[in-house]
Formats: sequence, C-alpha cells, structure tokens
Amino acid sequence: MSFMPPVTEQRFVLEHIAGIARLAESERFADASGDMVDAILEGAAQLAAGEWAPLNRLGDTEGAKLTDKGVVMPDGYVEAYRAYVEGGWGTIAAPVEFGGQGMPFTMAIAIMESLGSANMAFALCPILSVGSIESLTHHGSEELQVAYLPKLSSGEWTGTMNLTEPQAGSDVGALKTKAEPAEDGSWRIKGQKIFITFGEHDLASNIVHLVLARTPGAPEGTKGISLFLVPRYRLDENGEPGEENDARCVSLEHKLGINASPTCVMSYGDNDDCHGWLIGPENGGMRAMFTMMNNARLNVGLQGVQIGERATQQAVSFARERVQSARAGGNSREPVAIIEHPDVRRMLLRMKAATMATRALVYYAAGQVDAATLGDDEAKARSEVLTPLAKAYGTDMGCEVASLGVQVHGGMGFIEETGAAQHYRDARIAPIYEGTNGIQAADLVGRKLRLGGGAALASLLSDIAAGATEEPALAALAGDCEAVVGWLSSGDADTDDQLAASYPFLTMVSVATCGWLMARQLRVAEAQLGTGEGDSEFLKMKIAASRFYLDQMVPEARGLKAAATARADILYSVSDESFAA
Amino acid sequence: MSFMPPVTEQRFVLEHIAGIARLAESERFADASGDMVDAILEGAAQLAAGEWAPLNRLGDTEGAKLTDKGVVMPDGYVEAYRAYVEGGWGTIAAPVEFGGQGMPFTMAIAIMESLGSANMAFALCPILSVGSIESLTHHGSEELQVAYLPKLSSGEWTGTMNLTEPQAGSDVGALKTKAEPAEDGSWRIKGQKIFITFGEHDLASNIVHLVLARTPGAPEGTKGISLFLVPRYRLDENGEPGEENDARCVSLEHKLGINASPTCVMSYGDNDDCHGWLIGPENGGMRAMFTMMNNARLNVGLQGVQIGERATQQAVSFARERVQSARAGGNSREPVAIIEHPDVRRMLLRMKAATMATRALVYYAAGQVDAATLGDDEAKARSEVLTPLAKAYGTDMGCEVASLGVQVHGGMGFIEETGAAQHYRDARIAPIYEGTNGIQAADLVGRKLRLGGGAALASLLSDIAAGATEEPALAALAGDCEAVVGWLSSGDADTDDQLAASYPFLTMVSVATCGWLMARQLRVAEAQLGTGEGDSEFLKMKIAASRFYLDQMVPEARGLKAAATARADILYSVSDESFAA
Repeated sequence: MSFMPPVTEQRFVLEHIAGIARLAESERFADASGDMVDAILEGAAQLAAGEWAPLNRLGDTEGAKLTDKGVVMPDGYVEAYRAYVEGGWGTIAAPVEFGGQGMPFTMAIAIMESLGSANMAFALCPILSVGSIESLTHHGSEELQVAYLPKLSSGEWTGTMNLTEPQAGSDVGALKTKAEPAEDGSWRIKGQKIFITFGEHDLASNIVHLVLARTPGAPEGTKGISLFLVPRYRLDENGEPGEENDARCVSLEHKLGINASPTCVMSYGDNDDCHGWLIGPENGGMRAMFTMMNNARLNVGLQGVQIGERATQQAVSFARERVQSARAGGNSREPVAIIEHPDVRRMLLRMKAATMATRALVYYAAGQVDAATLGDDEAKARSEVLTPLAKAYGTDMGCEVASLGVQVHGGMGFIEETGAAQHYRDARIAPIYEGTNGIQAADLVGRKLRLGGGAALASLLSDIAAGATEEPALAALAGDCEAVVGWLSSGDADTDDQLAASYPFLTMVSVATCGWLMARQLRVAEAQLGTGEGDSEFLKMKIAASRFYLDQMVPEARGLKAAATARADILYSVSDESFAA
Repeated sequence: MSFMPPVTEQRFVLEHIAGIARLAESERFADASGDMVDAILEGAAQLAAGEWAPLNRLGDTEGAKLTDKGVVMPDGYVEAYRAYVEGGWGTIAAPVEFGGQGMPFTMAIAIMESLGSANMAFALCPILSVGSIESLTHHGSEELQVAYLPKLSSGEWTGTMNLTEPQAGSDVGALKTKAEPAEDGSWRIKGQKIFITFGEHDLASNIVHLVLARTPGAPEGTKGISLFLVPRYRLDENGEPGEENDARCVSLEHKLGINASPTCVMSYGDNDDCHGWLIGPENGGMRAMFTMMNNARLNVGLQGVQIGERATQQAVSFARERVQSARAGGNSREPVAIIEHPDVRRMLLRMKAATMATRALVYYAAGQVDAATLGDDEAKARSEVLTPLAKAYGTDMGCEVASLGVQVHGGMGFIEETGAAQHYRDARIAPIYEGTNGIQAADLVGRKLRLGGGAALASLLSDIAAGATEEPALAALAGDCEAVVGWLSSGDADTDDQLAASYPFLTMVSVATCGWLMARQLRVAEAQLGTGEGDSEFLKMKIAASRFYLDQMVPEARGLKAAATARADILYSVSDESFAA
C-alpha cells in the first residue's frame, strides 16, 4: 500500500501548535518562513513516500545482517540513505557554522516524522546522528567539532549513542567500560556495550560512537562517568577516515521489530587499541549525554506518531476497500466497505484522534525547545515538563494505534504479508528505549513535579484549565490533575507513593495536555471552515477527531484518578514470593 | 524459563467461582469430586510443564512447515501430542457413550488453560477437536457419531472448523463453497477455505474437517448454509482411514505469532472427488456451527488467560532476578531486584489482577455452561451473556498483560530469545479469530441485550450490584452499566448508536463482572486467611490482586461511560474520504 506523509496536517500543527511563524520572527530562525516550511515538508514527503517507504517491508523481512565484511543493510538502503544525504535533509537543523541550515528543531521533527512513518527502523540512523551532533555542539572541543561536525551534519558520517551494558540499563551509573589516558592526549577505551542502534552498517564512510566510560579513579555511579568520541575509522592528516579503530560489532540482536535497524553488541578495545577523545570535562559524561537525551526522547515520542500515522493510513485504505456484511442499521442488504460499520469507523476515528493528539503534543514540545533556544526560560521549563509526556504517552498511543490497525484488518492483520503486523511489532520498542516509560513517569513525579518549585507543571495545568472553559470534560480532567499534584506534592505522599502513582498520573497529564491542544485546533478549524479557508475535508476530520478526543478519550483518563491517588501500600502488602505463588 | 500451571489458583476458582462442587452433586457430573479435580489439575499441570512448555519456543522459531509430504510439525510435537492422547486428556469432557469421561466442560477449560499457557499454538489443535466433537454430538447422525466420535474424543483423530473464505470472513453468509449430492448419499464438496487452524499436520492418523458449504438452490446468506463432515482420509470398511480424500492444504500463512499452529489454505475438490457427509439438516449449518462456536469462544477468551498467566510468570521470574538501581524511596544505595521498584511492582500486580480476573470470568462462564447442561435455564441465559464478555475482554487483557510482560523486561523484552515477545505476538490473534472482538460487542448490544426481554443482562447487573455493597467503586460501575443499558434499550438509541457504543460498553460490563467475581474471591480469601486455612502466600496475593482490581481497574472502566453513551453521529460527521485527508 502506498504511504504519503500528511503534509496538510503537519503544516497546520506547525502553524497553530508549534508556533513556527513566531519562531521565524527571530533572527536565528528567520529562514523558517512559510514558503520554506512548505518546501521542506513537500520535499521530505517526496523522499519519504518515494524512496524510504517502499523499503520498509524488505527491511523487516531481510533485516540488517552481520557478515564477514561487517554489518550490511538490506538491498536499496545504501541508495535511499544517499538520497537523504544528497538532499541535504540531515543538515536542516544543524548549526550553520558547521555546514547546517540552522532551521528550528521543530522542522527537523516534522521531517523525521515523514521519514519515520515511511520507515521507522531506517529513520533511527539519522535520529542517532542528530543526538551526536547535539552533544558535540554543546560539549565538544573546537577541534573535535571542526573535525566531526560538518560530515555528521551532512550525514556523510553517522553517529551512535553507547550507554547500555549488560548490567547497566536503566541504571546507567552501573556501567563498567573503562577509559585510560594515552600519551598523545587521547584515551584508550575498553568494554562492551549492548543495544547499540546502528552501531555498524554500510551506509556511511565513518561512524562516530559516543561512548560513556569510567576514567581511572572516577567516583562510583553517574558522577564518575565521562563521554568519549570513538570513531570507527580514525581520521588521517587530511581529516578523512583512515586507520580502522579497535571498535567493532560482535553480534546483532534478533528482535521483535525494527529489523532494518542493526542493534549491535559493540566491543571496544579487544586489542587494547581503541582510541577515544573526551567530550566535555572528565566525569561530566551524564550532562553531555543528557543534552542529546532530551531531544532524543522527543524523537522517540515522535515514533509513536510515525507508526500511528502509518498504521492509520493503512487501516483506512483497507477499510475502504474491504467489503463485508450489510450495515446492521441500514435498509439495504448489500454488503458495504467495512469503514461504513460503526465499530470499525470508531476504531479508525480513534486512530486518527490519537495520532493527531500525540503529533500536537510532540510538535508543541519541539516548539518549546526552539523557543528555549531563543532564550525563553518559561518555554524551557515547559519543554522539560512535556518531554516525559511526549515520550511515554506518544509511544503508548503508537502501540495502541498499531494494535487497532491490526484489528481493523481482521484475520488479514495477523498475516505478515499485509504489513499491519510489522507496525505492531515495530511500535513496541518505543515505550522501552531512550528511558522506559516507567522511567519517564519517575522523571515526571521526581524532577519535573519539583521544577521551578512546582511552577512549571502548575503553569501547564493552569493553561489547560484556561483553555477548557468550553470543554467540561477537559476542565474536569485538569482539575483532577491539579488534585493529584496537590496530593503528590504534600508530605502525605512518600517517594513510594509518588512512584506507584506515577504512570497513571503521567497518562492523565498527557491526555489533559493533548485535550487542550486538540481544543485549540478545533477552534481554529471551525473558524477556517466558517471562512472557507483551507481544505474542508481535512478541517472536518480535524473537528471530528478533536471532538472524539475531547468527548470520549479525555473522560477515559478521568478513570485513572483512583490509581493516581492510590498508595504504594497495596504493592508491598505481599511478599516477592507471593507473586510466584 | 520454567513454567508451572497455577494449580492452587485453578482449584480455588473452580471451587468458589465455577461451582464445581455443586456440579458434582448432579448424577451426570458425579465423577467431578474434589479428589478427581485435584488429580486432573495435577496431571494436566505435569503434562503442560513437562512436555508442552519446553516446545513453545521451538514451535515459534521453527514453525509448522508445508513439505512434499504435507504439513510437518516441528521436532518433538508428535511425541508431545501422543502423550496428550495416551494420557486420555482429550476424552475428559467427551460423552461417555463415545469413550469419553463425561466430566464438566469446566474441567476441560481448566486442563486447556494449563496446556495453552504452556503452548498456546499447540493447544489450538485439541480446542478445534473439541469443537468438532460438540457439533457432531449435537447434530450428527448416529452413523457419523459412531464412526467418528470415539477417535475424535480420544484425540487419535483431530478436527477442524472451515468457515472463512477470502470474501467471507465476519460475513459467513457470503461463502461460496459448494456441495452437490452424490448417488451414494454423500456429497461432493468444492471450494477453497482460508485461515484453517491445524487444517493439516502429522500429529494424527486422520483429520475431520467440518466444512460450511452451499447445496444446490440454497437460499442466499446464512440461511442457505449446510455443514459437512469431510475426512482427510475416507474410512474403509473397518472404519479405519483408507483412501485419501480430495482435500488438501495448498499453502500455509506466514503469521505474526502462533507459528506452531499451521494456518492453512484448504482446497476441497480440486479433482472433483472430495467426499463429504451432511451434519444436521440441509441449510441448518449455521445452527450446527454455533454449537461449536459458543464453547470455542470461551476457549479463545481462555487464551487470554493462558498467555496472561505465562507472561506473568515469566515477568515475575525476570523481575526477581534482574538487579538494577537502588530503591528511590529507600535508605540503601545498593541496587535491588527490579520487583522492588514501585512501578515495576505495579505492572506485575496489574498482570496478576488482570489474569485472575479474566480466569474467574471464563471459569464462571464455563460453570454456567455446565449448569445449563444440567437443565438450569437461567444459567443458560447467563452463559450466553457472559460468552462475548469472556471472549473479548479476556483476549484484550491477554494482549495487555503480554505487553506489560515485555515492558517489565525492558530492552531484553524486545529480544526474541527472551521469550516475552513471543507471548506478545501470540496473544494478538485472540481478539481477532472466533468472531472479532467487535463482533462480540455487536453480539452483546444486539442479541444479548434483548435476551429474555432484557432480563438476562439485567439479572447479571443486579447480581453485581448486590455483591457490591462493600465496594463503592464497583457499585458505581454497576450503576453506570445499568444507565447505559437503559439508554441502549430506549428508543432513543438507534442501531448505529448501539454499535458505536458497543465496545466501550462491553468493556464496562466485563470489568463490572470481573470486579464482582474478584470481590467474591476476596471475601473467601480473607475468611480462609482468618481461619488459617489454605496457602497463605496464595491467599495474600489473591487479596492484594482483588483489591488492586477493585480499587484501581474498576474505576478506570467508569471512564468509559462517556464513550458508551456517545452517539454514532460523530463517526458519520465526516466522509469516508476525510479519513484519508
């Protein structure tokens, strides 16, 4: 089935939710004019639909393979990646001083939505590169920046993030990889990393690994971690990839999904000759890594949107073609396309609503990141509150929408050839990596609840309440959220209580935020429809999906209040052994 | 990881929810004494844990294969099936007159839970056989019964159901397979069937296909469908499998999960020599098929329980072993097993609660089926109301629990070798087959809402309300359900409105029913714990899981009321084209 990125919708959300026009008023983002935004969205859509989407199924069935010559991508991927590089898509949001176009992060998000909807596994490669660029830009020495940023920005080289080790997953501080100083000022890295996305491949002439490791005598835990740049090929005197570094992929994981994305076990320093260069200060690795993690979390939240959009388009297409049974409530006994049946239509509208709502959430968060870059401190705090919501709720909805997509297909949904099942499998990684959704919930009730002395979250809820004057269910949910915040922040709730409540609370706040953003879009769409502006089919769906979200999905979230105010006691009323009884 | 069926829990639910002791008071089920129940549960658990569970992963990776010699099962399956047959497990609930043991259906459910938890894909083979036995017992001629039932009951032969054709899925009435009368009184069958579970394999010496087809001049739709018995091998004069019938598997589907279960495209009469025998009257096929479908639906609802139990055991085991991070709320900085972390423990308790709740629902429904067999008409009506709830909610929860199981494993959950991902994939078929969950919801607001003039559903809700005097959230949910029933039954809600509301309504009624059954178990467990009776670790978990369900999951379902009373208008406020806009 053919896929086409929802350019009209992207444009609408960029304009009315992310505030792209306002960003373009600044000197820094002056290039993000309306015409340029349109051109970028259209261009990315063409690349996504024309070159990346057709490879999605092949990437799933064939997968990346570890061969004698290293990791090899499936047929067509090298060419499709080249098209991405040559089109300059990697440079969109990269710094101008290193060959980038300096556009807002929000535009990179929009581009990545299109590419990731087309091919979620493949899009992980540029996402990881963007993370590396961020870290180097903010924390790298000028020498490293000059040497690596131009080619990372262009996409000629790609980047990776190396945090996880077998014993150190969510607990990054438990990592054991070592870095010893060498005489030439560089470091020698030794250790094994797991779950390294695009840790090796044949798409680029060099791979830039960012590796967390411990230097001699470093303190325990996260305070003793440093970040190193470890190239696959060390650079020669001309700055070109030269001698092979002692850094290699030793095996690939066999995964539930995203098979086109090689998930590598990486071994550094097997021959004691893995050269690395420090990024930022010694023991400052966590800070440097967090720089890339926040934006990466939004990019993962975006994956929920990507898979939601793709699954929805496919389900709509199937439901319009598949004829089965007459309408139960109709007069005719002629069978109809299943999109006519109320429960199928309900599933499809739910898919539309969830995807629109999470897109708005992620784009809004990205817009706040850009506003923060322009010096807006409130936007910075807002973006920090929004990040765990976008990551966790975005990916949860991605899974739900992909599952609904399977269901709409009936028996055909369970057959791999149909493609709906791939989305269901691919989607499932997103709630796990880049900080599990449980970690996001802990971040929300931990750091974010206290951010600005509580003001950051309170101001979001207050904005939602202010936007809910015509939406009683949303107003009630916002009130519920405020009540939960009150309890969580009181001395009455201890840390265990906060964590026990964290996940349902995160969902409540996420839905409230999405409801607010949907209500805002609803008003705009109604106004535009009234004045005859815009695409009326699109606007009618925007109104219907917003109403569905506000009238049916927002009330659902109110049902979570009991769980979000339950104490941890019940969890610890039973022994560990009882769980196995 | 090792798996062991939850025998203590099964015994508890059989006794306090399914009413097995009361069934055993009847002459018909007198054999189902306490000792016999224990022996059956223990024996099934041994077979499941010892022989079926170890083959589960191999069945997934290797799968059933179509070869020159027909469909071949993965290594070890022939032996494991033989152990099932030789242990007499297939005959438990089969009629005594045909070599069966005549035990209650409820006991067959308990056995099947253990086998299906061990190996969901494999257990489909006996489930399908049981369906064939049901149909033959109720609708087959004496000649067919004598010829086929003993070996179907013993498991020496297996059975299949053949409804679906490419154009006829949920709309069974659209099928085109033909049956022409032959001179010898049998029929010649011609047509293609798809999605035929265990349509061919090498486990048994014969396969008995039950095939829906149209006879010449039959009316259109479901009123013109007849049921035929089509053996893979026609019986010779000694009643043994003889000449090969013109019925074969032409291809296997490549599926998301249940790979050990061959899903066949079956071709009947390619050489115009496919012999079939009529079951029941001509054009009476739907009725004969429904006989097997109702029990099959409970068996599919049970699959949600199966996968829930298996996924939970695996997640608990992992969470007790995997050490990561110190307790945020604790004083020690030592890392702990992740089961100690509140949000992980919440996920595990939710898995326990959902699995217990759906087990209670399915066992309760099975107990009502048995009571109906003993002539209890109220139980019959109750079982008919419960069937769509058990099928749809049971399988939805199975998927949710399997997904939580993946999440508890973190990154390891996405790696196929871990096994959690297989449960997630396997579980996903259950909401689809045997009538999609949307079809179940339509059944609830269609036939079941009106059953007995509305009395069947009203009496269930009234029992729930009566059992909720000490449970305010449950009482409120029961009240919500009654309010929705009132609206759905009023002239105010048309067919479209009923169908638009059907799915959230089904979930509400299911949760209310489960909440009621959990509350009943809670009281028993508290009493037993008070008197020192029973396994205290088990009873404490029963209490905790019941409280969690009542205090946190029941309130969630209240959030569905808005969707269950929304009209269909919003769904049809947009054109089909708008969905693609």
